[in-house]
Amino acid sequence: MASQAVTPQSQDFSKWYNEIVYRADLADQSPVRGCLIIKPYGYELWEAIKAGLDRRFKATGHQNAYFPLFIPESFLKREAEHVEGFSPELAVVTIAGGKPLEEPLVVRPTSETIIMESFKNWIQSYRDLPLLINQWANVVRWELRTRPFLRTTEFLWQEGHTAHATYEDAERETRQMLDVYADFAINDAAIPVVQGRKSDREKFAGALHTYTIEAMMRDKKALQSGTSHNLGQNFARAFGIQFLDENNQLQYCWTTSWGVSTRMVGAVVMTHGDDKGLRLPPKLAPYQVVIVPIFKADDERPAVIAAAERLRAELSDAGIRVHSDLREGQSPGFKFNDWEMRGVPVRLEIGPKDLEKGTVALARRDQPGKEGKQFVSQAGIVEQVRRLLDEVQASLLRQATEFRDANTHDVATYDQLRQVIEAGGWARGWWAGSGDDEARVKDETGATIRCFPFDQPDGAGRCLFTGAPAQRQAIFAKAY
Amino acid sequence: MASQAVTPQSQDFSKWYNEIVYRADLADQSPVRGCLIIKPYGYELWEAIKAGLDRRFKATGHQNAYFPLFIPESFLKREAEHVEGFSPELAVVTIAGGKPLEEPLVVRPTSETIIMESFKNWIQSYRDLPLLINQWANVVRWELRTRPFLRTTEFLWQEGHTAHATYEDAERETRQMLDVYADFAINDAAIPVVQGRKSDREKFAGALHTYTIEAMMRDKKALQSGTSHNLGQNFARAFGIQFLDENNQLQYCWTTSWGVSTRMVGAVVMTHGDDKGLRLPPKLAPYQVVIVPIFKADDERPAVIAAAERLRAELSDAGIRVHSDLREGQSPGFKFNDWEMRGVPVRLEIGPKDLEKGTVALARRDQPGKEGKQFVSQAGIVEQVRRLLDEVQASLLRQATEFRDANTHDVATYDQLRQVIEAGGWARGWWAGSGDDEARVKDETGATIRCFPFDQPDGAGRCLFTGAPAQRQAIFAKAY
Repeated sequence: MASQAVTPQSQDFSKWYNEIVYRADLADQSPVRGCLIIKPYGYELWEAIKAGLDRRFKATGHQNAYFPLFIPESFLKREAEHVEGFSPELAVVTIAGGKPLEEPLVVRPTSETIIMESFKNWIQSYRDLPLLINQWANVVRWELRTRPFLRTTEFLWQEGHTAHATYEDAERETRQMLDVYADFAINDAAIPVVQGRKSDREKFAGALHTYTIEAMMRDKKALQSGTSHNLGQNFARAFGIQFLDENNQLQYCWTTSWGVSTRMVGAVVMTHGDDKGLRLPPKLAPYQVVIVPIFKADDERPAVIAAAERLRAELSDAGIRVHSDLREGQSPGFKFNDWEMRGVPVRLEIGPKDLEKGTVALARRDQPGKEGKQFVSQAGIVEQVRRLLDEVQASLLRQATEFRDANTHDVATYDQLRQVIEAGGWARGWWAGSGDDEARVKDETGATIRCFPFDQPDGAGRCLFTGAPAQRQAIFAKAY
Repeated sequence: MASQAVTPQSQDFSKWYNEIVYRADLADQSPVRGCLIIKPYGYELWEAIKAGLDRRFKATGHQNAYFPLFIPESFLKREAEHVEGFSPELAVVTIAGGKPLEEPLVVRPTSETIIMESFKNWIQSYRDLPLLINQWANVVRWELRTRPFLRTTEFLWQEGHTAHATYEDAERETRQMLDVYADFAINDAAIPVVQGRKSDREKFAGALHTYTIEAMMRDKKALQSGTSHNLGQNFARAFGIQFLDENNQLQYCWTTSWGVSTRMVGAVVMTHGDDKGLRLPPKLAPYQVVIVPIFKADDERPAVIAAAERLRAELSDAGIRVHSDLREGQSPGFKFNDWEMRGVPVRLEIGPKDLEKGTVALARRDQPGKEGKQFVSQAGIVEQVRRLLDEVQASLLRQATEFRDANTHDVATYDQLRQVIEAGGWARGWWAGSGDDEARVKDETGATIRCFPFDQPDGAGRCLFTGAPAQRQAIFAKAY
């Protein structure tokens, strides 16, 4: 597979993406419409994402729990906006144990409703607050158009659900978890996300407001990569979640929810990938280093393999994720291409001459050709590799940040916005339009408000659409 | 809750179990029939079980992947025994995205069929073998009678699925994974499981044969705690999984599957628990140590809390899972009971006198009263606690082993078997009966063949039921 050329990004980004997902062995198509099979290499990437997030959730005081896959249909109907938002996407179990069910069960599209029903039982007094729960789970939304990792009928995610005594506490939590997501995205996934607030039109069904991290893909489209919702008292009222405050008064709780999904795998692919394949940030890469032994004559083989194995053990003992490619019958060139396709950050080559000289060649995935290759001493290999992995991690973030900044344009008028969107890129400008205005922009340009960034310029301006005074800027872009 | 007395095991074991599960905060009932909510304390226990198993799977060369939740109904029908085994238990999605589905989708009761469909695509040659895959997932079986963790409509588990070139390779894998399960059960969960083979009547639907680990609960019933199946070529033939062997001949693969579920949580509860609550093996306990500060006068508080916090930090830095119970308005006695209920292996008490003397009291959960309590110096607390945790781990295994051995009885006749089963216990004896004979024993005594243990006496004997010559012994017991 890896020997065939990949469709270049510049020619057809969407085709490039699909080819990379399958050729890099991240996933496979399944016989179930819209469902993906996550292959071991893709699942290891997901496990690294999970570990990075889970560690941060626990460090901020959250605990994992698990709630049922099935939700009674009536639960979903209790919060009016929520049911409206999800109804068209539901998969429904109507038969179980050979008989029709009296009340159909919905396969969870998200778990607010079933978790709030438990919160009602678990919360009595202000002493029970805050209640900080996270769940790792599969969810199902019957999407018409699906794409690997980005939009699938079933997907894996985490959903945080918390309850608080005051609006301020809930708001602080909502913002904190967006910060956690941004910290993970920037520092682990090397994705320079923009943090901001969703417009009312784009917010979560049932939320007071929604915060988001938005990432720019290599085709200059935006990918919403994680969201955090302040649900106000909407769900607490719908599910009767009340607590006795310190003055013995009965109050409704304030709740939040927040989620990141396997979509993050797609974000990593489309932020860093190039025409040779994936480029994985070292912190998430299943293999950080791949060793390719090189020899021509058969009698060179044993010594080279032995040296490769010694280096593998040394790196592995130091906690570096390393794989030695000992496949027979495949040329080094084939192996180079294969591991470039899979995005391994550092390749270590070792041959007979290296044995004589006590050296190895290290090649960086983020820098093509000779420029990215260096010959180093085998002594102190662990430190050399560690430093190189740090450099690759930083370099991927820097490249992605430069790309994002170069393709984000300030616009003052609707005409300018149109031009930016048409040429490809993000348009940033003052906005004071209505939801209907947003809808018109979407109809006419295909772009939506990705967010009102937290990072705003001082002062105020004129709405690019209506010309009215505007207090804040929005970022418009086409999105996945 | 914890302040009310628990129903003693001797009075009603089943009631004791249910009370413990809820009072120790492992789980909660859900509004969905037969589905459990796993609360944070129970989920942390499950996470420890997962980690212990996952580490062993990876060490034996397995990789995790993820396959769809939904299985087309037609897939399940391809392997005749398999569909017969699972048909009565299926939950079926018939409506999705607002429309009836053309082909209903079954919520996976186990994933053999959908995974074998992928194996067919992934395997071409002997070079692709063995293929060693594991999946962590939720599955659904519409059970009529459910019990927390032991039998629930939805449960969490891992299911390993592997393909091999020969019967011998598949058999070796099947046995290896049973060894992995036994190693985990004995060394991490302190459960002295018996390894053996299931009778044909009790094997997995579609398997050539099934191996099992069986554990004795405190009511002397057996709990099947993990199974490993040699599926022969049954699924390979049903799904057309073929490979070209080294002689370029097309062959069917040999496949295996093996699983452990959240049922293991129930096994831990019922193997070690007593009338005061859980007793958790230190290797799996969410908290290995709980610190309870003790003081009478308010002016004693700051110094005691400060010392408790210093010890907590010291233990935590050493990698010991420790929790400091600083709840106000609760007496030390209440806290002792509460943490005994939750089964924390070691309690550390510290009061004003300890500050003067530089000591603390350490109390073992596995030894009640003064016998299990010792006063030790604060200096070197990490080593003291580590040694005590090792002792508790070993002691729980020893106690459970002694209990199992004391309640396992050799029987030579059906009358003796009846007596043992009636009195409570496992009956071990020579067996050469038919499946119909097994069925009759079950009808008349309630006991089934739990397994033919791998550990067999030398020689042969007479079947306890038919009197015919018998080559192997079986263990009969009532089971969950």
